[in-house]
Amino acid sequence: MLGNTFGKIFRITACGESYGKGLAVIVDGVPAGLSLTEEYIQHELDKRKPGQSALDSPRLETDIVQIFAGMLEGKTTGAPVGLIIYNVDTQKIHVDQYREVKDIIRPGHAEYTFFVKYGKYADWCGAGRASGRETVGRVAGGAVAKYILDKENIEVFAYTKESHGITARDMTFEEIKANYRKNEINCPDLEAAQDMIKDVLEISGKGDTAGGVIEVVIKGVPAGLGEPVFDKISADLAKGIMSIGAVKGLEIGGGFKTADMTGYEWNDGPYAEDGKVRFKSNNQGGILGGISTGQDIVLRVAVKPTPTISIDQSSVNMETMENTKLSAITRRDASLLPRIYPVIEAMTRCVILDHLYMWKAWCGMQRYENKWRDG
Amino acid sequence: MLGNTFGKIFRITACGESYGKGLAVIVDGVPAGLSLTEEYIQHELDKRKPGQSALDSPRLETDIVQIFAGMLEGKTTGAPVGLIIYNVDTQKIHVDQYREVKDIIRPGHAEYTFFVKYGKYADWCGAGRASGRETVGRVAGGAVAKYILDKENIEVFAYTKESHGITARDMTFEEIKANYRKNEINCPDLEAAQDMIKDVLEISGKGDTAGGVIEVVIKGVPAGLGEPVFDKISADLAKGIMSIGAVKGLEIGGGFKTADMTGYEWNDGPYAEDGKVRFKSNNQGGILGGISTGQDIVLRVAVKPTPTISIDQSSVNMETMENTKLSAITRRDASLLPRIYPVIEAMTRCVILDHLYMWKAWCGMQRYENKWRDG
Amino acid sequence: MLGNTFGKIFRITACGESYGKGLAVIVDGVPAGLSLTEEYIQHELDKRKPGQSALDSPRLETDIVQIFAGMLEGKTTGAPVGLIIYNVDTQKIHVDQYREVKDIIRPGHAEYTFFVKYGKYADWCGAGRASGRETVGRVAGGAVAKYILDKENIEVFAYTKESHGITARDMTFEEIKANYRKNEINCPDLEAAQDMIKDVLEISGKGDTAGGVIEVVIKGVPAGLGEPVFDKISADLAKGIMSIGAVKGLEIGGGFKTADMTGYEWNDGPYAEDGKVRFKSNNQGGILGGISTGQDIVLRVAVKPTPTISIDQSSVNMETMENTKLSAITRRDASLLPRIYPVIEAMTRCVILDHLYMWKAWCGMQRYENKWRDG
Amino acid sequence: MLGNTFGKIFRITACGESYGKGLAVIVDGVPAGLSLTEEYIQHELDKRKPGQSALDSPRLETDIVQIFAGMLEGKTTGAPVGLIIYNVDTQKIHVDQYREVKDIIRPGHAEYTFFVKYGKYADWCGAGRASGRETVGRVAGGAVAKYILDKENIEVFAYTKESHGITARDMTFEEIKANYRKNEINCPDLEAAQDMIKDVLEISGKGDTAGGVIEVVIKGVPAGLGEPVFDKISADLAKGIMSIGAVKGLEIGGGFKTADMTGYEWNDGPYAEDGKVRFKSNNQGGILGGISTGQDIVLRVAVKPTPTISIDQSSVNMETMENTKLSAITRRDASLLPRIYPVIEAMTRCVILDHLYMWKAWCGMQRYENKWRDG
Repeated sequence: MLGNTFGKIFRITACGESYGKGLAVIVDGVPAGLSLTEEYIQHELDKRKPGQSALDSPRLETDIVQIFAGMLEGKTTGAPVGLIIYNVDTQKIHVDQYREVKDIIRPGHAEYTFFVKYGKYADWCGAGRASGRETVGRVAGGAVAKYILDKENIEVFAYTKESHGITARDMTFEEIKANYRKNEINCPDLEAAQDMIKDVLEISGKGDTAGGVIEVVIKGVPAGLGEPVFDKISADLAKGIMSIGAVKGLEIGGGFKTADMTGYEWNDGPYAEDGKVRFKSNNQGGILGGISTGQDIVLRVAVKPTPTISIDQSSVNMETMENTKLSAITRRDASLLPRIYPVIEAMTRCVILDHLYMWKAWCGMQRYENKWRDG
Repeated sequence: MLGNTFGKIFRITACGESYGKGLAVIVDGVPAGLSLTEEYIQHELDKRKPGQSALDSPRLETDIVQIFAGMLEGKTTGAPVGLIIYNVDTQKIHVDQYREVKDIIRPGHAEYTFFVKYGKYADWCGAGRASGRETVGRVAGGAVAKYILDKENIEVFAYTKESHGITARDMTFEEIKANYRKNEINCPDLEAAQDMIKDVLEISGKGDTAGGVIEVVIKGVPAGLGEPVFDKISADLAKGIMSIGAVKGLEIGGGFKTADMTGYEWNDGPYAEDGKVRFKSNNQGGILGGISTGQDIVLRVAVKPTPTISIDQSSVNMETMENTKLSAITRRDASLLPRIYPVIEAMTRCVILDHLYMWKAWCGMQRYENKWRDG
Repeated sequence: MLGNTFGKIFRITACGESYGKGLAVIVDGVPAGLSLTEEYIQHELDKRKPGQSALDSPRLETDIVQIFAGMLEGKTTGAPVGLIIYNVDTQKIHVDQYREVKDIIRPGHAEYTFFVKYGKYADWCGAGRASGRETVGRVAGGAVAKYILDKENIEVFAYTKESHGITARDMTFEEIKANYRKNEINCPDLEAAQDMIKDVLEISGKGDTAGGVIEVVIKGVPAGLGEPVFDKISADLAKGIMSIGAVKGLEIGGGFKTADMTGYEWNDGPYAEDGKVRFKSNNQGGILGGISTGQDIVLRVAVKPTPTISIDQSSVNMETMENTKLSAITRRDASLLPRIYPVIEAMTRCVILDHLYMWKAWCGMQRYENKWRDG
Repeated sequence: MLGNTFGKIFRITACGESYGKGLAVIVDGVPAGLSLTEEYIQHELDKRKPGQSALDSPRLETDIVQIFAGMLEGKTTGAPVGLIIYNVDTQKIHVDQYREVKDIIRPGHAEYTFFVKYGKYADWCGAGRASGRETVGRVAGGAVAKYILDKENIEVFAYTKESHGITARDMTFEEIKANYRKNEINCPDLEAAQDMIKDVLEISGKGDTAGGVIEVVIKGVPAGLGEPVFDKISADLAKGIMSIGAVKGLEIGGGFKTADMTGYEWNDGPYAEDGKVRFKSNNQGGILGGISTGQDIVLRVAVKPTPTISIDQSSVNMETMENTKLSAITRRDASLLPRIYPVIEAMTRCVILDHLYMWKAWCGMQRYENKWRDG
């Protein structure tokens, strides 16, 4: 019920579950004349494909996207773009496995709250809309946003900053960009990455899983994006990213370190250079007063450990309201870090593009008695 | 431009600046028959009044709220409630002071981004809509939400968890409730509070300011609030709270500590007791799959140090694009912690109430072939 | 760009064109536990199928709906319902026909405005999103609304009141209900219907087409639906129905006859009967102050003649900006009346259901100090 | 509850009733740098002031608008503009009069539906939010839209086309413009106007009131405004105008006459002139496919007779549910035509401006691979 549409001008509306026939996303706000292709979107979808390394679930998800609306002879037409991805791995054997335990709460999962909200007809099969599979729609929609942002030279990079307490060292953006996709945990600090992978595999060997932190850098955002006071770009980024299932925290620029700082330390010294305002540091994370400064926007996102573990856990049978045990589950991601980054990138892109549209509206309008600038 | 309305069914729309005539908020979604009073709203507004301690700005803000619409003979009528608060401290002397430095960026403030966005007619006086004064509307609107939530026995508590690196110890909620308003920094750990106050005064003595962390506990929220997938209650809380000027981070339950945990550690063990599902711990912060579990919802919010400091800072003249110096400013809050908590409480209440309305819509509708429960 | 989502709580988002692969609609706000079937939706879709009589286009549209998301084992789950209808009649021969005349404005059609808005990449094939085929999504979404309204005993009836100047006589609702689907022009006045059909065929024989008026009666709507002041139920019905391509006017109750009336004539005399308020007449059309009265809601909708005619017309080549001629087109509907009524019913149902949700939210909330009623 | 905000990018949020302290409107989406004045807004408000002729209510409404937010030193700042109008004619004597009859339904008024919706605490005084006084907020907000549209050379004209069966003859727009404000019933056909006034006064002499039709012409709208498929400019105009209390019908261009026409008659012949597309007629009312054509947009609006009449009427006491009599009421408008046109103009302007913003967003974005045009 509700809650399946995101964005105001650039807007995605998604549906679909793990064990239904398929997932779709309708993308509204796409300009006419774009040579968008299924290959382009597929490339983004492939990033979240499982089974790419020992860290992910072996679930077979051959997510093949089909553009079924909004294009004519290879060009977008200004109409909403319709994308559908049919599920392939929905064998009856798995459905039956889910049916057997459908009344038993899987700790850290959403069965219980969906049961409360939607009653006994809540989707019990593969977590339904609370499944990570739901993010297929986000990534497909975000790929369309990416296609447009490419043309505006706005780039979004998400990579692993921390995994189960092991932290990547601070690096220049050039170093990050050169290295962030060189290993299966997407950590640009190649040494730390090896430690992280080893650590996750060790945890996984014990049937357990690990959490971590993803850092996001958005480059090329012009100054001026964000709508005070409630629709600050920071607020909308927070909403978009916190709406992803496993995300439990978000910080911008200095973030929680801010708590230990004084104003003198925190304030990023502005200075003029080449007729432009620049800043000596970026505690503000590229946002002041909820509006982009033209610097990199920098976020960090806390990702919880995969709740599905291969260890027996005590639980509750919701139907009988009796205490029971949930057996170990084998098919799972040892860490969400290798697969969640494209989802975070996708939501980030949707927010940035939505605000860019608003900025264009604003620039188009604000020029009456304000000859000082053209916006 | 835009961005001044928050919420879907319970909705606040605000306007007003530091040095205009006044601030107003229109509150839509108020049931008929409530004995709301100006005193009730005033009580909340008074919490954010400055000059209550040595930690705040000595600015004189006698914020007197007037209900000018939506009530008849002491009862709400179902019409939107109109609230206005006239500014009193808008003497020409202060306006002139602001005019003198209107082209000079105040580090950590939003002059530059407002200048980019709105051009030379951006409000240069007292930070305009980027001023903390804007939060008057939030607190007044949130007070109306509080009046309704009181009747639903839903309570929101916000208090200081950390100030400039000094952290309150972990306490039971009973201890917190008993003590959280006993000192001017709103810290329930009375010893830590003394250290915090002493520390902030010391920093303030050097012309500087301090950041901190506010913790929020929401009690009495029924299980079932939140609209997957994009309008999770966590996502909407994040948007509402991150839209407050000085907030730079937000975490739910385990939050960033999640990054160091394994799934086995993180999963809050569900168990049955008295025919209800309970949980052994609360790393999930009272939210699973974006829907409330019925536990306390627990958040932590990073608050930056006041950017206004009494130390000279290098800066830029936006008109001439030359480097310059911004002189020390004396009228300021040494810490935002004593005054920001009612704003955080207000936004939290607006979000919870908005979702409660949606929950009521849902309960009213979902009963057709679903006899198992009545919602 | 934008504009493809309708509704607030019960919400449809649609995409798809005449000559793309297919059309889809995502329906949000569907309660869990409904035994919705493809057959149920198909039944509504079949109503708008062409080729059912000599009055419609011979275009072959075997619109087979597939539910691909939002259901599990025959029950809705509370997740958004995804519906897709693949196009079958998209032969290259027709595409080539459209290509030949793609720069020539078809009078009464939207080529020109889409060209202005979306540029040369605007969809030129079969009118794209300006085609009547777009209404497939509306009807499919409206069928889901119908399923829910059935359970609330709310019924929507749309039938032909007038065709090309021939008007059905005034009839009791019982007469209307008994007869309104007995002929291919959906007119309950069976004699007038024969005149209408004969007249339309005659017009069609000359290569021309005819307009008309559809009347809508909504029965069973409880008093209380509608949100003053801007979201009056009348305003939302107007938006929903006027958003249908061929609709050029809408009136409620007395409508334009109102202009000739005095207040004494217009006012529907309220009286008490069996402890209920009733009205002697229904000039108000079942709505007062934008809120339903509990009477039938009655609307009349002006439908333009099909713009596609089999007569040569002068026109413009948009590419060369030269005057030219558009040749007669043979495949067309002689009147839109036989096929537009299910679209009008669908939009009506979406609006009524959306307001019903809001009413449930309101009833759930408004009970604090208002013991007089429970809502 | 809800429904008090209108528009997406240019957005007004209103509150206030007849007998509260005042009415306010918050106008969001106002560019910075405008020299908006209270005088400018007052000029529009004065148009709806009663007591200007024998046709209106003698109620004393000295509506003085105050801009209390969103401006600094005579210029808008990009922040939302706050406007407040205090009620002056709220003497206790009138309140007492309303109290006496508060449980008695006034035929044609909204007491009953407000009573159903909001219960016994619904505003019984002067019709509360169902009063025509509510439109003060619309007119004030629309005045801000007018200020911006002036600069875009977009003009809105509303005038009386028909009053109680007396119809103005068809005239050129030049004639209309020259004469439409020359008499108290705002009818450009000066002879018909005299007949109308005489007729209304005669009706009024019998204690009765009269309905009519307002025609609206919007000049200067560029081609391209409107967002298919649900947010067609026709659909949004319908919603905006049908949300005005007394409006019972709306038609665009040919409107209901469309029902009598054939396609050949209806289609407005496009032709090329001076490198532009023009049309030989305007049955389409300046809108095709929900997008403006660049022609005049022409609407007609059915306005019901004032429901307040000076004739005894049978009615119901809602508290006792007994049949009763409502005595004649003396203070009333004999016709709404002289005072409703500025409200219709205001809503029209809000819709046009909102779509203009969206158009600017679109033009700013749609230029990637579409070099053919710049938008």
